[in-house]
Amino acid sequence: MRMYDVISKKRDQVELTKEEIDFFIEGYTKGDIPDYQASAFCMAVFLRDMSEEERAHLTMAMVNSGDTIDLSSIDGVKVDKHSTGGVGDTTTLILAPLVASLDVPVAKMSGRGLGHTGGTIDKLESIPGFSVEMEKEDFIKLVNQNKVAVIGQTGNLTPADKKLYALRDVTATVNSIPLIASSIMSKKIAAGADGIVLDVKTGAGAFMKSEEESRKLAEAMVSIGNRVGRKTMAVISEMSQPLGKAIGNALEVKEAMDTLKGKGPEDLTELCLTLGSQMVVLANKASSLEEAREKLRANMENGKALEKFKTFIKSQGGDERVVDDPSLLPRASYQIDLPASESGYVKEMVADEIGKAAMLLGAGRATKESEIDLAVGLVLNKKVGDQVQKGESLLTLHANHEDVEEIKNRLYENITITENHVDSPTLIHGVIKE
Amino acid sequence: MRMYDVISKKRDQVELTKEEIDFFIEGYTKGDIPDYQASAFCMAVFLRDMSEEERAHLTMAMVNSGDTIDLSSIDGVKVDKHSTGGVGDTTTLILAPLVASLDVPVAKMSGRGLGHTGGTIDKLESIPGFSVEMEKEDFIKLVNQNKVAVIGQTGNLTPADKKLYALRDVTATVNSIPLIASSIMSKKIAAGADGIVLDVKTGAGAFMKSEEESRKLAEAMVSIGNRVGRKTMAVISEMSQPLGKAIGNALEVKEAMDTLKGKGPEDLTELCLTLGSQMVVLANKASSLEEAREKLRANMENGKALEKFKTFIKSQGGDERVVDDPSLLPRASYQIDLPASESGYVKEMVADEIGKAAMLLGAGRATKESEIDLAVGLVLNKKVGDQVQKGESLLTLHANHEDVEEIKNRLYENITITENHVDSPTLIHGVIKE
Repeated sequence: MRMYDVISKKRDQVELTKEEIDFFIEGYTKGDIPDYQASAFCMAVFLRDMSEEERAHLTMAMVNSGDTIDLSSIDGVKVDKHSTGGVGDTTTLILAPLVASLDVPVAKMSGRGLGHTGGTIDKLESIPGFSVEMEKEDFIKLVNQNKVAVIGQTGNLTPADKKLYALRDVTATVNSIPLIASSIMSKKIAAGADGIVLDVKTGAGAFMKSEEESRKLAEAMVSIGNRVGRKTMAVISEMSQPLGKAIGNALEVKEAMDTLKGKGPEDLTELCLTLGSQMVVLANKASSLEEAREKLRANMENGKALEKFKTFIKSQGGDERVVDDPSLLPRASYQIDLPASESGYVKEMVADEIGKAAMLLGAGRATKESEIDLAVGLVLNKKVGDQVQKGESLLTLHANHEDVEEIKNRLYENITITENHVDSPTLIHGVIKE
Repeated sequence: MRMYDVISKKRDQVELTKEEIDFFIEGYTKGDIPDYQASAFCMAVFLRDMSEEERAHLTMAMVNSGDTIDLSSIDGVKVDKHSTGGVGDTTTLILAPLVASLDVPVAKMSGRGLGHTGGTIDKLESIPGFSVEMEKEDFIKLVNQNKVAVIGQTGNLTPADKKLYALRDVTATVNSIPLIASSIMSKKIAAGADGIVLDVKTGAGAFMKSEEESRKLAEAMVSIGNRVGRKTMAVISEMSQPLGKAIGNALEVKEAMDTLKGKGPEDLTELCLTLGSQMVVLANKASSLEEAREKLRANMENGKALEKFKTFIKSQGGDERVVDDPSLLPRASYQIDLPASESGYVKEMVADEIGKAAMLLGAGRATKESEIDLAVGLVLNKKVGDQVQKGESLLTLHANHEDVEEIKNRLYENITITENHVDSPTLIHGVIKE
């Protein structure tokens, strides 16, 4: 087999076989196939697309390029959740203990990553003492015992995807549905999930700006998952403004605890119930999404969800007293309000620009070397659709330095107030079951 | 400027500017832009095409990537001819002295190359003493004096094209009209031509198999030439069977001399008159193609064309007595006929397969290191449309070894005889003037 022929088939819209896709991924991972052939291939895929069958083969070829995590010694159906990324997305912190409170096993491998705030691990580490460093055996023991545990990245998962992503990043071939879908799905599958729930964001703050593209991506991933034997569902959710109210590490932990008590922001609560219901159904802990939602809602109200969070924190060395006394979390020196410069209705809060403001306060990493300030960030007091009076606080900056004029200006530029009534944006744009 | 943006513009069908194309070609030639970006770009061009304006910019960017030959000290309009390559294509050997006999200056830079037979230089070197080694000054003096001279490749012409072609060759991006057209035209322009006549072959033995693709390529090249200020015309000519009758180096020299006398094969003569007329018109030595054709035909009949050939050979050290006594050319030890196995009409003589048979006899190079046997090759005694009796010779093998059974079998496999009358294929499929 020659890579030349694989490229020319894809170029000419001839469907590739499993063997041809395996040949490409194995050869590229080993270095037998050079970057210049791989990039020509990626551009051909970008412009010619891939069939559902090809996408599934590509995903499994990438899974097989490296280590896979064996979670078979954990009882029950292990369901993982993935978000395509947005601003103020606190869902993982909430969903892990929430679905675990219904005995859905959550064996979460998580990262730090670049972005407006830290990753799930950074957020959890704002709880004094909390650690994700443990042996894999202890991790599995913890999940079996408490139904929930979080561990840092381990093993050499999907090296083909890492290498290919780096290449796509410099050859204008990132934004391709088959390549994005297989990249995400390969990582989830390699991490051992039996079932996968996907939160595909749409709007200005999302990777996919249009609802149509988001839907295509969601459908592509659900198709891949189900073809390779992993039960998969997806939600398409709004990301034109930040999700919930908190953007920052400790700030999001506080917001997660509020939500677990049933006192969180409306949109964040709703999204967690939607995603959580899918996770519960995939784990066979409810027979319908409606039944799952009722059970989750009940555990928010009867305190079991918060209790599970406490157990989870404590079992990984964290100070569980934060649950009852959030003032034990890191706290920024300055709380600075951003007053509305006019009265009216909030029309727009540009998600990624507001996220950047949080990053500039120190909440996220611009490069791998950046230090995160776990205390800082933003808390929105108004969201799109809310009425506001001139001088009323739009949001509160939590900062560790007083000199925030530039950041405030940036925020003003990205928040629009209008005279006329504005509807809240629709949060859930669709649910894709198969 | 970033190569990433140039790739993504092309990918998204946005027209590139001259500056962007220059940036790519300069950066790639210098090595600042890596192969993997160039190959992704080439695949995007392959699938998205280029506008006429972009093609012209790409051509000139490649011209400017290296040396260019300055022929301004040669009087008159220097017209070059290029063929996209076929089997038994003896036209250059004929056209050079033929148009020179009408005072059209022919300053030909030529190569050896791989293929079924050698290149123009190899063919000429079958004339004892003939040499293309000379100083550039002497070359120009010769052209001014005799109107015709041939020199070997000199200078570092279009290094961008060489580098890009090597990359396209391994990334399935060769067969793209804008990339082929700019590659060919850049080489002709760098070699100093004021006017360019293109012979675009079509059919089984050609690079472009369909007439439609051949026409697109011809139109693309004519458009580029005229946009960058070089008068350009093209002919689309048949290449399903070999052109003329001889395939081999000395054999083609003999055929060229016959044709210059007006006694060559009909198709070869016709193609030379068609291409030659364009060259004469572009050089302003006739006011119409019809007038040019008459003048060329006259010089075949009155001996001036052959006389010019003699002068040309002698001036480059060759033994001009070959013109009157072709037996002075290298001659193979064995002349072996291929008798028809049945009576009927010749329906097919698959050009490239018959070319391969000539190469197997030793007429061409399979690799750069191969030694050419100037004496060997094939002479067709029948062509498509001819009637043949069982046992009559279809062609004669000129070989330097007797063991030609395999080659004969290969030839039989690629010559079809049918009971019913067959028309000769149309030779000239079109003429493109601008």
